[in-house]
Amino acid sequence: MSDVSNGPDFAKTPLVPAIAQDHASGVVLMLAYMNEEAYRETLATGRVCYYSRSRKKLWRKGEESGNIQEVREMYYDCDADTLLVKVNQIGGAACHEGFKSCFFRRLENDDLKVVAERVFDPKQVYKK
Amino acid sequence: MSDVSNGPDFAKTPLVPAIAQDHASGVVLMLAYMNEEAYRETLATGRVCYYSRSRKKLWRKGEESGNIQEVREMYYDCDADTLLVKVNQIGGAACHEGFKSCFFRRLENDDLKVVAERVFDPKQVYKK
Repeated sequence: MSDVSNGPDFAKTPLVPAIAQDHASGVVLMLAYMNEEAYRETLATGRVCYYSRSRKKLWRKGEESGNIQEVREMYYDCDADTLLVKVNQIGGAACHEGFKSCFFRRLENDDLKVVAERVFDPKQVYKK
Repeated sequence: MSDVSNGPDFAKTPLVPAIAQDHASGVVLMLAYMNEEAYRETLATGRVCYYSRSRKKLWRKGEESGNIQEVREMYYDCDADTLLVKVNQIGGAACHEGFKSCFFRRLENDDLKVVAERVFDPKQVYKK
């Protein structure tokens, strides 16, 4: 196994938040979590793998929808407890609700606005 | 108090990760956390306030360095457990180590590279 002393400190933070950002547009697509296994798989394969806290297992982003995330660059922060992954988002949409970004709702004076248009229809992509 | 039923679900996630992104350049500056009090203060003042997990109190970003973050837009995600705040970063640097972004180290085959230049010298900014 490779040395991760230069990466996130999983001993301190077993589930590290990972921000996925579109490498070309700079749009912040989503935030999910990586455990050390997911992080190592992401480094090894060049495809983003998260750890699903609800399903309690590795979550190979796009395994169901096909909307995988190809790693272009990966950064970690000054506290070694957050990752930033610049990705090529296949399919153009990261959000399971069919939006490019999971951050499609803008807060305005405690109100909200949906500010994006769906890229795909979830019902068509997730057959369940 | 205003209704936050349209915002993050602090009952489910008492400490919501908040991504700060430069509103003009799209650079992801940092990730920190907000509890409900920090979130409400941020909405009310238009200046980003986090909750410091280490100091266990509100952290008005820039209160020591002067490098405050002015809110331009605020979004929350499909799971209502993450915030994205587009900010105007006063002083040009969000990181306490003097870099524009806390994500100044790029991972390359488990190696790392510092890919940014310091904007300020921490020793000059933090008098301690």
